[in-house]
Amino acid sequence: MKEVKVAILGASGYTGAELVRLLALHPAFKIAAMTGDRKAGMSMASVFPHFAGLVLPDLVSIDQVDFAKVDAVFCCLPHGTTQEVIAALPAHVRIVDLSADFRLFDVDTYAQWYGHEHRAPDLQKQAVYGLTELARDAVAKARLVANPGCYPTSVQLPLIPLLRAGLIEAADIIIDAKSGVSGAGRSAKEANLFTEVAEGIHPYGIASHRHAPEIEQGLSDAAGAKVLVSFTPHLMPMSRGMLSTIYVRTTKDAKAADLRAALAKTYADEAFVKILPEGVVPATRHVRGSNFCLINTFDDRLAGRVIITSVIDNLVKGASGQALQNMNLMFGLAETLGLQQQPMFP
Amino acid sequence: MKEVKVAILGASGYTGAELVRLLALHPAFKIAAMTGDRKAGMSMASVFPHFAGLVLPDLVSIDQVDFAKVDAVFCCLPHGTTQEVIAALPAHVRIVDLSADFRLFDVDTYAQWYGHEHRAPDLQKQAVYGLTELARDAVAKARLVANPGCYPTSVQLPLIPLLRAGLIEAADIIIDAKSGVSGAGRSAKEANLFTEVAEGIHPYGIASHRHAPEIEQGLSDAAGAKVLVSFTPHLMPMSRGMLSTIYVRTTKDAKAADLRAALAKTYADEAFVKILPEGVVPATRHVRGSNFCLINTFDDRLAGRVIITSVIDNLVKGASGQALQNMNLMFGLAETLGLQQQPMFP
Amino acid sequence: MKEVKVAILGASGYTGAELVRLLALHPAFKIAAMTGDRKAGMSMASVFPHFAGLVLPDLVSIDQVDFAKVDAVFCCLPHGTTQEVIAALPAHVRIVDLSADFRLFDVDTYAQWYGHEHRAPDLQKQAVYGLTELARDAVAKARLVANPGCYPTSVQLPLIPLLRAGLIEAADIIIDAKSGVSGAGRSAKEANLFTEVAEGIHPYGIASHRHAPEIEQGLSDAAGAKVLVSFTPHLMPMSRGMLSTIYVRTTKDAKAADLRAALAKTYADEAFVKILPEGVVPATRHVRGSNFCLINTFDDRLAGRVIITSVIDNLVKGASGQALQNMNLMFGLAETLGLQQQPMFP
Amino acid sequence: MKEVKVAILGASGYTGAELVRLLALHPAFKIAAMTGDRKAGMSMASVFPHFAGLVLPDLVSIDQVDFAKVDAVFCCLPHGTTQEVIAALPAHVRIVDLSADFRLFDVDTYAQWYGHEHRAPDLQKQAVYGLTELARDAVAKARLVANPGCYPTSVQLPLIPLLRAGLIEAADIIIDAKSGVSGAGRSAKEANLFTEVAEGIHPYGIASHRHAPEIEQGLSDAAGAKVLVSFTPHLMPMSRGMLSTIYVRTTKDAKAADLRAALAKTYADEAFVKILPEGVVPATRHVRGSNFCLINTFDDRLAGRVIITSVIDNLVKGASGQALQNMNLMFGLAETLGLQQQPMFP
Repeated sequence: MKEVKVAILGASGYTGAELVRLLALHPAFKIAAMTGDRKAGMSMASVFPHFAGLVLPDLVSIDQVDFAKVDAVFCCLPHGTTQEVIAALPAHVRIVDLSADFRLFDVDTYAQWYGHEHRAPDLQKQAVYGLTELARDAVAKARLVANPGCYPTSVQLPLIPLLRAGLIEAADIIIDAKSGVSGAGRSAKEANLFTEVAEGIHPYGIASHRHAPEIEQGLSDAAGAKVLVSFTPHLMPMSRGMLSTIYVRTTKDAKAADLRAALAKTYADEAFVKILPEGVVPATRHVRGSNFCLINTFDDRLAGRVIITSVIDNLVKGASGQALQNMNLMFGLAETLGLQQQPMFP
Repeated sequence: MKEVKVAILGASGYTGAELVRLLALHPAFKIAAMTGDRKAGMSMASVFPHFAGLVLPDLVSIDQVDFAKVDAVFCCLPHGTTQEVIAALPAHVRIVDLSADFRLFDVDTYAQWYGHEHRAPDLQKQAVYGLTELARDAVAKARLVANPGCYPTSVQLPLIPLLRAGLIEAADIIIDAKSGVSGAGRSAKEANLFTEVAEGIHPYGIASHRHAPEIEQGLSDAAGAKVLVSFTPHLMPMSRGMLSTIYVRTTKDAKAADLRAALAKTYADEAFVKILPEGVVPATRHVRGSNFCLINTFDDRLAGRVIITSVIDNLVKGASGQALQNMNLMFGLAETLGLQQQPMFP
Repeated sequence: MKEVKVAILGASGYTGAELVRLLALHPAFKIAAMTGDRKAGMSMASVFPHFAGLVLPDLVSIDQVDFAKVDAVFCCLPHGTTQEVIAALPAHVRIVDLSADFRLFDVDTYAQWYGHEHRAPDLQKQAVYGLTELARDAVAKARLVANPGCYPTSVQLPLIPLLRAGLIEAADIIIDAKSGVSGAGRSAKEANLFTEVAEGIHPYGIASHRHAPEIEQGLSDAAGAKVLVSFTPHLMPMSRGMLSTIYVRTTKDAKAADLRAALAKTYADEAFVKILPEGVVPATRHVRGSNFCLINTFDDRLAGRVIITSVIDNLVKGASGQALQNMNLMFGLAETLGLQQQPMFP
Repeated sequence: MKEVKVAILGASGYTGAELVRLLALHPAFKIAAMTGDRKAGMSMASVFPHFAGLVLPDLVSIDQVDFAKVDAVFCCLPHGTTQEVIAALPAHVRIVDLSADFRLFDVDTYAQWYGHEHRAPDLQKQAVYGLTELARDAVAKARLVANPGCYPTSVQLPLIPLLRAGLIEAADIIIDAKSGVSGAGRSAKEANLFTEVAEGIHPYGIASHRHAPEIEQGLSDAAGAKVLVSFTPHLMPMSRGMLSTIYVRTTKDAKAADLRAALAKTYADEAFVKILPEGVVPATRHVRGSNFCLINTFDDRLAGRVIITSVIDNLVKGASGQALQNMNLMFGLAETLGLQQQPMFP
């Protein structure tokens, strides 16, 4: 297998570290450079002591990377800082961007939700939205893949096939999502202290979370018409994991079994998206550390309604795992390389 | 203040222990007897070492209690075992029952959800459903109060006034609830082991939880017509706390502000139910250990929809705290006695 | 009971908030002013939403407080910033300082461990070290009480009586302590993020923690000779609670039972320090939210050695609770006022 | 690579499940049979839903396994039930036993600590104690390996080389250990409920834990004389992980640096045992899910004393990982096969 030289930009955060964890078992991708602007000059083992057992390049600043010697870039920089960095990369480099910077096709929508004009609108046009299972061919040919957000991944994997099949009403989708704290990153914030998060739960970003337009973009495309969603994320005391409990109204008298059958058909040959047998309840801890997405459907007590549940590890299928899955495709490799770890439970 | 002699039946579980904690600061209620059938003969300090500092009677079996010397009974026995115990109590004793045994007025509904005929249907007719703020007068006069379940408390406090005011549609109520583990009691079950619960979340009892008919009973009464609800509880890694995120469709073009105003008016003089200012998000950890219920309303992204959030401590306002609040009323005492502890944060 | 007007300096941190929680049930102390320099002008409910149910003064800066109208000051400011603030307070005000600023009698030791000269050496001479049970008379007469640190409280309560009785060797004391995260305060630090702390444990400040000289000061005084200790604190995933497991070598062939008897005698009449019966193991969760210190002793497998365990809630007996206990004494009140809440379990 | 057919006896517990997780990435070992007496007939996915993505044999009872078709057995049965099961296995099968049944060479010591006579004393004589790094040659040739306990692994890896080198005193070893809850297994016990464990810590088995004689056996062998240890384990709220903080007295004026150097030399070529650089503190979360043991040494504040810290994942290096490491050796395979996953953080 031909070696692919990989750079991780922004390797000092959790998604960067998660890429290092996954790449350690990858047979072809070799980490050639890692950047961390504020931590340039430090060893990865000093930033993340759990990597003491790996031989890794030290962190450098982006301008110290010789991109001529790099084939692939994982970009784990904060939202808003990424557009100019990627625009400056040489043409031979293929990129998976884990930030939100290239996820919204419509630059006006971007400007509205992110508070500034898009800084690389031409590059935006080339970007492919990398929800792997539903965009495999486009991803394989892409130079720049916008890696989906964690919430949008957990929500779109079940809903897009159902909207395409016309099995649910597009106008009445209610998403109640629960996330682990790692989604907030590693920067020091009072709200994410152990003492503030442990032993409690609360919603946040009610009706105003930036993943709403990203979800709506995908669902609108699937429905063939503008879709808005009710989306309420909650922060809860776990480091990893994401559960979306989705309340939908069905069309054509469809029941949970019909929705399950449709999803099972869509994902029949997938390595990572699994539709569970009737009655089996997805739990976040059953995907921890893995790239799986587990989905099931349940008849609601209200006639004409179905409850869909979907779980992922927000750092794997919701971020670095899906990014690696996409990069595998971009280099013509088996999609599962580096992603074969089983969930870790307990 | 005249001393009231209290017995706690089933004191070896979490709701029994919580009553002991609250009663320790109560100026009138004195614990005269505590029962725990399997633990009869043991000291409370050996069952709950955190009570080592209190002088308490030892646990006995129910037939060892001299109810002639008891004025008030808190019944913390498991569901299904309570009806015959309460039926056997002498007439002078006033009772708050924390089990589900007397919560459903319709004994057929009871039989359907609990799997056996009601064993004390005449007593059921006398029972008052003790959602204190909305049933104060009836509670004050009752001999037997059926203390509401935790989920029903968190859901009915916001929804009943809104249904009464005709501000929300009764036919489209979706409740996504999240609970701490203490709601499952202290009995040893694999599903509630630390290793099974920590660092994860999952729904359970989807469309089949026994609190659904209890919620529907209260909402139907408020709406003046049969109401069904979508109700999905989730188990999450916290010991105490309960959040209900409720998705409703409004009538009359009502907005979140209108619903908040209606609730604020209903609960204006309440000591324990607080409607938060616009934009302030209820968090379970902000009611921990207290009898408070915090509620707020938020405009949804979908037109005509509002999101209502409600938090309680499931062991206090969701169980033992509300039970004490009710018993205070039943003995003509200030409702807040023994319940003035502030939330414990962090 | 005569009303005492209280100011809390530094009320926006966890120890300040804990004082508010405790004072809410105090019959004599009324909060007249609260300061929080960076948060001056904010309501306490916006800084700590769990206090939404209380009527409290807004936060102000220290220079906005009219100390002429204040009788008692709880000083919860960070270490190192407190000396000048307290030096500037008017003479009629009595003070309990929760920082480390006045805990070390020897200003040279202070300078060595805290990195700067003591800024109020005269005031230091008046300060009384407020380990309440062992300094009751001095505290009652003091104007300025240096409230002990959390680790030193959990360690000195068992060890000082044993050293005074000559039952343990002073030269071979090993303290392995475990603390909840609230001891680190509310400031945003990467190391205290939920994701960094959950599901793990590690030692910190090995052989270099600032509580070592504070412990040694008290033990030296009890032993009548200079004592050094081995002291290793650990950070673990709980918000509150502290366990010190202490390994000692006994003299005079003393066994665990002898040490237990000596401690039981010392603390026989204490409301908060409890020596447990033989074989009962102290657990931090059994003191959560309370001012208790639970202690027991166990014969070691190594001859001549005994293991002493001691648990407190670091925010109560380890900080704000003991501070209130001291202030009660300083105003001639019953020591237990405001401190009668039972532990909250689960 | 030749396929080795593996049976896991007692696969329905946590160590069995952990073996499945690790073996899923193993190139040579194939799971041919899994037993779970009470769960015989169930699919592994119904017992452990996180394995829904794997093709695995259903659970059977032991007498249903055709051991003629099995090359290797991992025995994960409860302590005390294992001796007769292993004695009945055919001679060609090689066995790693994860229980305590064959760990103590002296059957009298076994009888004293486990409460019954050893049931397979002849087999005991053949058993090799599989602390891999220190018993590699014997393990490679063994038919039956007694896999070390979790605490003994974390303690002996640092202490045995130091005792052999005569760098520490054998008579004054104090071990304060902290464990995650998975060490207690998956059986339903009140003491291990989430509500009983969360947000707290307590010691257990003080001076009476069964791992003490196992530790002492190894240390005595290393010291060439009978060694007793002070050993106090603690239960804390994490699912996985184990930290041993060990307090030793050095000989020959040795400092932490000398001990670190000796350990670094012993383990210089090891894949899994890592001696950290001066000042770097081992944390359990930095080995989570991996087979690593991280060790460091620190000068104590007491002259002549050093503090040694050692962390492992109790389910990996403390159980199933070390078992696999041993089995690799027994079949002449690279020791690291199936064990190359990096730690999962956060």
